[in-house]
Amino acid sequence: MTDIPHAALLPNGLSDVLPPRAEHEAHIVEQLMAFVAGHGYHRVKPPLIEFEDGLLSGAGAALTRDTFRVMDPVSQRMMAVRPDFTVQIGRIATSRLARTPRPLRLCYAGQVLRVRGTQLRPERQFTQVGAELIGATGEAAEAEVIVLVAEALEAVGAADLTLDLNLPTLLGVLVDAHGLDAEHHAELRAAVDHKDVAAVRTLAPSGLGGLLVSLIQATGPAQETLAEIGGLGLPDPAAERVAALGRLVARIESAHPGLPLTVDVLESRGFEYYTGIGFSVFARRARGELARGGRYGAGPGDSAEPSAGFTLMMDAVLDAVPPAASPARGLAPPGHDRALAARLRREGWIVLNALDGTDDPAAEARRLGCTHLLGASGPEGLD
Amino acid sequence: MTDIPHAALLPNGLSDVLPPRAEHEAHIVEQLMAFVAGHGYHRVKPPLIEFEDGLLSGAGAALTRDTFRVMDPVSQRMMAVRPDFTVQIGRIATSRLARTPRPLRLCYAGQVLRVRGTQLRPERQFTQVGAELIGATGEAAEAEVIVLVAEALEAVGAADLTLDLNLPTLLGVLVDAHGLDAEHHAELRAAVDHKDVAAVRTLAPSGLGGLLVSLIQATGPAQETLAEIGGLGLPDPAAERVAALGRLVARIESAHPGLPLTVDVLESRGFEYYTGIGFSVFARRARGELARGGRYGAGPGDSAEPSAGFTLMMDAVLDAVPPAASPARGLAPPGHDRALAARLRREGWIVLNALDGTDDPAAEARRLGCTHLLGASGPEGLD
Repeated sequence: MTDIPHAALLPNGLSDVLPPRAEHEAHIVEQLMAFVAGHGYHRVKPPLIEFEDGLLSGAGAALTRDTFRVMDPVSQRMMAVRPDFTVQIGRIATSRLARTPRPLRLCYAGQVLRVRGTQLRPERQFTQVGAELIGATGEAAEAEVIVLVAEALEAVGAADLTLDLNLPTLLGVLVDAHGLDAEHHAELRAAVDHKDVAAVRTLAPSGLGGLLVSLIQATGPAQETLAEIGGLGLPDPAAERVAALGRLVARIESAHPGLPLTVDVLESRGFEYYTGIGFSVFARRARGELARGGRYGAGPGDSAEPSAGFTLMMDAVLDAVPPAASPARGLAPPGHDRALAARLRREGWIVLNALDGTDDPAAEARRLGCTHLLGASGPEGLD
Repeated sequence: MTDIPHAALLPNGLSDVLPPRAEHEAHIVEQLMAFVAGHGYHRVKPPLIEFEDGLLSGAGAALTRDTFRVMDPVSQRMMAVRPDFTVQIGRIATSRLARTPRPLRLCYAGQVLRVRGTQLRPERQFTQVGAELIGATGEAAEAEVIVLVAEALEAVGAADLTLDLNLPTLLGVLVDAHGLDAEHHAELRAAVDHKDVAAVRTLAPSGLGGLLVSLIQATGPAQETLAEIGGLGLPDPAAERVAALGRLVARIESAHPGLPLTVDVLESRGFEYYTGIGFSVFARRARGELARGGRYGAGPGDSAEPSAGFTLMMDAVLDAVPPAASPARGLAPPGHDRALAARLRREGWIVLNALDGTDDPAAEARRLGCTHLLGASGPEGLD
């Protein structure tokens, strides 16, 4: 459709999704949800806003600065617009669905809002689709959600996927025994995140610098990288974390052979609330991550349950799937056979009713972007 | 699923939609959208929030008191969470889609928020589905959207529909010549809305009291009621408004015979921004209106275009349609045939993967609410 930019009409980072993209997005969302539902995940729909003290506690605290808040005149308490679904799903699992048998499989689709976009993604509203496997420990649960997200993406036509696996808590595990203070730890974390080898050597506790640099440099295809890390002689419990990641890789390769797996164990950006493995899914055609997920604790602190899940970012997913097909489109002139038009619509045609005053139905059909005109016995092509 | 009330977790009027209702709602929404799309309506998706001066101007002003507002730290301007879609669709039509040929058919589905619920409907978040036919005058356009909403509802199984037709501007047309001041007019409007015959007689301009009381009492089946009103000797232009409503009734009856039509010409509550006819759709099984709509001006004041549309309230729609069928549900034990499970899922089965440590797969399947266990050659029923 004709698209005249009126940028000033909308706040920066918020936009209208126009035809045909809005319909395409909705179709892909529902296909993904149907795929996930086929694996036993039950759809839930939490409200767009709720009390901020619930939404921004625990795992939600990492997004506090990105969250819109509004005063509720009814309760006189502050509410927040959700910046993410995961905290809400955890709340539902540990409250209203607390007595439903575990593992509990839940899924969701909807909108989230952020106060600020990033340089890479200026958008402030996102469509997210996700699934959470709640109350399940071990690599079987992690493998299930990873294979599920890959297969769901393939089912909607996303091609050339790659999966990057991480251990966002590994740095903490390694330095724990060395008693770093919080500020020192944060500096080291930032140096590792930026892969700043010189700073890591300076900031690392004695004896750990060389190991951390080796881990930063050990990234790439999963099996080779894990073998390389295995040769570094990591102390326990870090070694056990890497061994578990190796078992997870073997499970994924067995369940979904051919999915390229990479490993970057120290990568942790955006994984603040994960307690075990983290992962990201990429596709050659998409500019950013299609999905991310990992192992975390669902629900508020005391009642948190071991869980694994993923979130799909629909902007990136739409970049990675084939464009929507354009259905055939016909104009039905006044006095047309309504039963015939209804049958064509059930078969996938788009049939517009001409309103009054159409002297030249064929010209009117062309003007409205139709390819066909509905005749007495069926649609007639307009050359 | 087990449902333990934790009312205090969520603000009043906001709630979690749980299984199976969340999935049922999403399915019905997409079926309605597909039906509307088949009639040439293009889906658009405006953002959840935008600048308040746009969202609450013109037709949006009626909902100002019901709208959540947030400060945008990026633009330092006030934004509002949409309380309705119609204003946003009008903005899109008259800005980014200003050059798209008319009539322009647009549709939408999504969430809206209101600051306060009503006694009848305490909810503050609603799922709305709607369609707008923009840039089209006359009864053909009004008949199109009315027949479309009725057929869309029937397509998803809503039974025993009735349609109530109104002329929300008729009172203004009748009293216009009598020069009432605004306060007096508002009092009369309230008396008419409450069908308070005594107050109407007192407040009506001289010579109009008896006519207004007759119009208040003339409600019921469309043809009889219009005949009765035709005998009242309404002055022009009110008589022409009623005649146009009669032509609309004839069109609806011709296009969709058998839909019970009622008329209550002076009914105007909730139709503040309509400029011509208004309508509501009811179903015997649902507690409130399934849909409302009418004739209005789309877009901001100067560039407003004559339009007709409807909005479906999904809470009421879900009350009126048959409950969702429960698909068959099987547990796939560890080491199951993944290709067989994938085929069953494509056929509509729900197949859960058992995680590790399941000694008694049949017991585990029962515990998880499954009806079947996946064997080597297919699903086996669990008595």
